[in-house]
Amino acid sequence: MTFDPTTLTYNDAGLIPVIAQDAETLEVLMMAWMNAEAVAKTLETGKVTYWSRSRQAFWIKGETSGHTQALVAMRVDCDRDCLLVTVRQIGAACHTMRRTCFYTGVETGEEVELMVPEF
Amino acid sequence: MTFDPTTLTYNDAGLIPVIAQDAETLEVLMMAWMNAEAVAKTLETGKVTYWSRSRQAFWIKGETSGHTQALVAMRVDCDRDCLLVTVRQIGAACHTMRRTCFYTGVETGEEVELMVPEF
Repeated sequence: MTFDPTTLTYNDAGLIPVIAQDAETLEVLMMAWMNAEAVAKTLETGKVTYWSRSRQAFWIKGETSGHTQALVAMRVDCDRDCLLVTVRQIGAACHTMRRTCFYTGVETGEEVELMVPEF
Repeated sequence: MTFDPTTLTYNDAGLIPVIAQDAETLEVLMMAWMNAEAVAKTLETGKVTYWSRSRQAFWIKGETSGHTQALVAMRVDCDRDCLLVTVRQIGAACHTMRRTCFYTGVETGEEVELMVPEF
């Protein structure tokens, strides 16, 4: 079946959550949002392109920072309301210059910083 | 710092997206939602407990199917608006009886079923 981005289920703002996973290490890097056009652009260009809710604009990941995400594969979930992209991440996925946005652990009721800025 | 579920950022419906990842294989299994009480219950019980948007009720994963998720670790992202839980998954994470909900690939413009029901 031909994949049509408009057949996905978007929220009231026209967005779908997207999980980015490192294709090599399998580390979960971040979660962000795409609209149908961002999904299409990501597939067309191979550059992972989100929709920035704060800027209300396309957000080609790494365009200004150089910390790009090259698309390796895209998957759709069973409900068609979430995407998983596996990526080749250059540098930090997180704006705090850490490898992943998920650098805070919850351990026996305490928040623990699991990694420091690397890039 | 003591972790307080009420300090996370929830959407207008009081929910936060949660990514579940297999602690052993690192496969991304599913994405679902929790409210602050579900986050607290998950930590207290060690049983991953979502909030079902369709049923408007707590959803202790696997309670009826037996396909439980035992919490291994919880992480918070940089914006405090997404959680990652690593889990020990018994059986299928997906209601279609597949290992993961992300069983549909998008390959050269086509949707491809990457795995069949296993459980």
